Amino acid sequence: MRIFGDSISGNCLKVKWTADHLSLPYDWIEIDIRKGESRSPAFLAMNRAGQVPVVQLDDGRAIAQSNAILLHLGRGSRLIPADPFEQTKMLEWLIWEQYSHEPYIAVARFQVVYQGKSVTDLEPRLIERGKAALGCLEDALGDRRFLVGDGLTLADISLVAYTRTAHHGGFDLADYPAVHRWVGQVEQLLGLDPAA
Amino acid sequence: MRIFGDSISGNCLKVKWTADHLSLPYDWIEIDIRKGESRSPAFLAMNRAGQVPVVQLDDGRAIAQSNAILLHLGRGSRLIPADPFEQTKMLEWLIWEQYSHEPYIAVARFQVVYQGKSVTDLEPRLIERGKAALGCLEDALGDRRFLVGDGLTLADISLVAYTRTAHHGGFDLADYPAVHRWVGQVEQLLGLDPAA
Repeated sequence: MRIFGDSISGNCLKVKWTADHLSLPYDWIEIDIRKGESRSPAFLAMNRAGQVPVVQLDDGRAIAQSNAILLHLGRGSRLIPADPFEQTKMLEWLIWEQYSHEPYIAVARFQVVYQGKSVTDLEPRLIERGKAALGCLEDALGDRRFLVGDGLTLADISLVAYTRTAHHGGFDLADYPAVHRWVGQVEQLLGLDPAA
Repeated sequence: MRIFGDSISGNCLKVKWTADHLSLPYDWIEIDIRKGESRSPAFLAMNRAGQVPVVQLDDGRAIAQSNAILLHLGRGSRLIPADPFEQTKMLEWLIWEQYSHEPYIAVARFQVVYQGKSVTDLEPRLIERGKAALGCLEDALGDRRFLVGDGLTLADISLVAYTRTAHHGGFDLADYPAVHRWVGQVEQLLGLDPAA
């Protein structure tokens, strides 16, 4: 298996962490999105949307969309709950992440860290919706250790990816104590150092 | 089962069509989002994100996120491919729909039809990204009948929901002949009249 990803991207890193956690062997192919490497003809042949990450299976077939990749890699593993309702709740989080969290938390970070914007110049909508997303996580977590059920699932891995660097975009996790605690616990389970 | 949805929303209608196609019994509870009915305390207790659709199972538990609901309703049915790779490709489309299609195609329609904007006043980004999404669908479909494999899957139902009303937001499906043909075929399979 080959993972084509940009190391600055939480969407790519979550694929790496999942593969590492499940001890799946892979080669990591670094794709610099800022140099347009995800727009090359070879890359577009794998994913016409020109987005990272892409996973190429050993038979040559390719999979795009980080959370679909997570579901593919996690199939049959402990990272997907056996209980049908819990499985659905996990899917709910994975879809919510791409619709209501990533477009604000990840985009704010990208604009500040990689496009040099100051936090005060961010679109107010980014900040407002980003805070709403963190508030949803805070309410859902309460004193729970994991988003779904009693163990680590793909929902935690997916949501931690950009939540742990939310401060890069000006969000302060001190305002979301349950989220802050959960990030630390998930990082530990994944063997990650706290995000700088 | 109770489906809480707003009939103007493709995200809600796709849940109804899936239940109808699988002959699942349900009560439809109309929620008028423009009157703020998805922000009532009773509604927020089911889905703290305040978004429709929500499905409440007979035991009282609730599920949000249209595509997660589709996956829940479709579990074990012919709408989810048995082949693991095809299943993954279907998930890829469901996640792509919420990230790269709905935020442009559905939002353009909402602003024109329900907020009274003229098509010429839409943000250029909405139109550009919406066209890119339709272009991706066109490339993927070619002369295929369905997005994944040889039969109707949740990917077709999910993607048709807002594609069939793309013209409300100023997109012209005549520019995307494979998409136009596919919409008609899927509508027919779902027993829907062509969208006005």
